[in-house]
Amino acid sequence: MRLAEDEALARFKANDHGVFCTIHAERGVDAVPVVYVVDADGYLGVPVDLVKPKTSLRLQRERNLEADPRATLLIERWERDDWSQLWWVRAELRWQGDDVADREESLAEELARHYPQYRERPFAKVLVLRIVAISGWAATPG
Amino acid sequence: MRLAEDEALARFKANDHGVFCTIHAERGVDAVPVVYVVDADGYLGVPVDLVKPKTSLRLQRERNLEADPRATLLIERWERDDWSQLWWVRAELRWQGDDVADREESLAEELARHYPQYRERPFAKVLVLRIVAISGWAATPG
Repeated sequence: MRLAEDEALARFKANDHGVFCTIHAERGVDAVPVVYVVDADGYLGVPVDLVKPKTSLRLQRERNLEADPRATLLIERWERDDWSQLWWVRAELRWQGDDVADREESLAEELARHYPQYRERPFAKVLVLRIVAISGWAATPG
Repeated sequence: MRLAEDEALARFKANDHGVFCTIHAERGVDAVPVVYVVDADGYLGVPVDLVKPKTSLRLQRERNLEADPRATLLIERWERDDWSQLWWVRAELRWQGDDVADREESLAEELARHYPQYRERPFAKVLVLRIVAISGWAATPG
């Protein structure tokens, strides 16, 4: 059943991993797993890190956001055998551009605190996005 | 590192759950968790089922696909503590419309065989999509 907005937001803030979606003009949706943190003002930090190997640090998701700043992040609980445990939350996001150095810095700090893998802050950059809407669903209340 | 296309497709076919993304003209990407099956011809069946409670059976994802048949499905392995185990596969899809009754029927059968929850075929419908491209990534080879 549909989650109340505050409940959806609480689950979103308590989580730290999901599927990040941006729009590619030709092929449609680009979706990729990411980790994230949310700060007290409702800004989201999505790291472009140097830990998981990449062919390029100039990622398609950034090119997509420059052309269209709308993004979506979906988190979910999946249980193959017991569907009464399922829930998901979807955040509608707007990329804040590159001119948000202070916010990027504080979100990088939060990521380094949150994930042991990020202790040394191995970031090429941290994408900064604002939550503009949030919704969710759960198979069972509470 | 980037997965070879046949390896990406093999992982995609061996899986059955992921995040399904369609495009909403105003708010951008709509993403939602789904289960799925793939048949031998590379067609994907995504059920609209009567098991997980919904407010309406006429889902937003269908309205989106009628306006824009491009869809994306992402599957992934997530391991919080050991990022050497991470991998993901992304399939670029095209919705085949409503005029594919035979294919919908055979995919419904396959879903009923695959998921015990679907044994009685509790489907409002099965969305039929074709895989048009596939790509993937793994932290470590093999």
